Amino acid sequence: MGQVKRPGEFELIAGYFRPLAGGRPGALGLADDAALIDVPEGRQLVVTADLLTAGVHFLPDDPPDLIARKALRVNLSDLAAMAAKPFAYFLTCAFPETIEEGWIASFAAGLGRDQAEFEVALMGGDTTATSGPLTLSITAPGTVVPGRGLRRSTAKAGDLVTVSGTIGDAALGLARLQGRLAPVPGDDYLVERYRLPQPRLALAQRLAGLASAGLDVSDGLVADLGHICEASGLAARVDAVRVPLSPPARKAVEREPKLLEAMLTGGDDYELLFTLPAGREGELADLPVAVIGRMVEGRGVRVFDAAGEPMAMKRSGFQHF
Amino acid sequence: MGQVKRPGEFELIAGYFRPLAGGRPGALGLADDAALIDVPEGRQLVVTADLLTAGVHFLPDDPPDLIARKALRVNLSDLAAMAAKPFAYFLTCAFPETIEEGWIASFAAGLGRDQAEFEVALMGGDTTATSGPLTLSITAPGTVVPGRGLRRSTAKAGDLVTVSGTIGDAALGLARLQGRLAPVPGDDYLVERYRLPQPRLALAQRLAGLASAGLDVSDGLVADLGHICEASGLAARVDAVRVPLSPPARKAVEREPKLLEAMLTGGDDYELLFTLPAGREGELADLPVAVIGRMVEGRGVRVFDAAGEPMAMKRSGFQHF
Repeated sequence: MGQVKRPGEFELIAGYFRPLAGGRPGALGLADDAALIDVPEGRQLVVTADLLTAGVHFLPDDPPDLIARKALRVNLSDLAAMAAKPFAYFLTCAFPETIEEGWIASFAAGLGRDQAEFEVALMGGDTTATSGPLTLSITAPGTVVPGRGLRRSTAKAGDLVTVSGTIGDAALGLARLQGRLAPVPGDDYLVERYRLPQPRLALAQRLAGLASAGLDVSDGLVADLGHICEASGLAARVDAVRVPLSPPARKAVEREPKLLEAMLTGGDDYELLFTLPAGREGELADLPVAVIGRMVEGRGVRVFDAAGEPMAMKRSGFQHF
Repeated sequence: MGQVKRPGEFELIAGYFRPLAGGRPGALGLADDAALIDVPEGRQLVVTADLLTAGVHFLPDDPPDLIARKALRVNLSDLAAMAAKPFAYFLTCAFPETIEEGWIASFAAGLGRDQAEFEVALMGGDTTATSGPLTLSITAPGTVVPGRGLRRSTAKAGDLVTVSGTIGDAALGLARLQGRLAPVPGDDYLVERYRLPQPRLALAQRLAGLASAGLDVSDGLVADLGHICEASGLAARVDAVRVPLSPPARKAVEREPKLLEAMLTGGDDYELLFTLPAGREGELADLPVAVIGRMVEGRGVRVFDAAGEPMAMKRSGFQHF
């Protein structure tokens, strides 16, 4: 851990963060300048880094344990997007001076809970005080069998566009938290989907060697499919009615059909969006994945409504509507 | 790179950051969810992470290229502290909305300059806008021959306490920038030492297998020696007159002797502080390193003045005086 910026920083690390390094000799008890990592032979290292800041990626008054878990899971989702297996993470935090010890205790407890679930450990980092909003940066290494990592640039024309789980829940959950969406039966679920993404690590392992390309949906389904199109030099066609929706999301759209666009372009889904060679979709029949379209020659993403008409999209990227 | 927070973020990455990944196929053009890294056989990975924020680690109006280079060098110094060789880095940035493109161009140019000097490349990261101060987090992987990494916990009683370069320049440079120190001949050098640390990577390679313990001086000489003492279960004695000072720092102390304490406890030196088995100091005779004391049984760090009296230290840790 690096420089000490305020009294108690050493105690903070010793009391709350050092236990999160438990059982990893290479973490050196977070007491040295860096951590030691042995990459198993025959595995390639995959490293992702994401920064989250209050007011942009989470709400300042979100529960601290969920903020911690979301920060970690966003990174694990990036590793899933590469079909990599996570094993560790590095965390740097700029804590507002107003944050109290109880907040940090809950934050660390959230990390501990997810560490157990995802079999990762904190191996290093840094903390400082800030006059600005809470800012968290996580760098997470994982490993993959060389050549089996999922990429964005390798989709082929004719491939099926496929997505895991359900889309749009997080966008609706945020709108609900911010009072921009009237209550919907089951909207607690939508809020939870915003606050606590589910990195699709197990699915990712099934996709290695099967999917032709893929990523995780963080900017929004349309924008992220656009990333695959651009990287692969292709276009994509999506049928909106085939996009999987959760029951509360479906209720919200039935009440207010224009929400659908916001759900297809809102971010924070953290589902896997991938392309499959046509005919191989049956190999994932036991999993919650849905074919929603097809890769074609051309440029850009076109989404068609139930009547087969192209939907006009005001936005394609991340913009919490 | 992760979510997009403001218009132009993609262009920012494409225009200024993607070129910094040039020549590293594993960076995937910063266009995928994560980077691929092959760790050479027979090398162990060493990873450090540091967060820097305006007003704490640098001044908001410091030149942007120097802010970038300092952020990178602070991490490279941590790798030097482990006797590791750097090869890459991951950078996450929270940029205030007021920062203009020219600022970012200069920032990226600074990174590019240091990449060439230290043979590292940007392999991934994230950018976001923030309502708070500029905040940078760098995670830097390096490699070391297993078992040859420098640690804090392995000093032995009787070992010589040794330091590279000169101590206290950065603390004086900051004081000068903040108007707390009257002009001193050569104080430009002091300011440069604050703004642009010199990671001792070449020295670090010489120390692997020779030094018994070590770290880099970031919290201040006394505090960092205290870290070695604590981790090794020992005490240290230091003779203040043996601590190497630069000519302008020496002039400042001659004028105002009480500055010495601030220099021994100020941070940001980024020199290597290490312990050598007695009798082996001759092996570093060609290098700018100085023996300043000895590891002994006990606890804590004691600093003795020219008369052999113990100096009273008001502070031991990082506190920009």
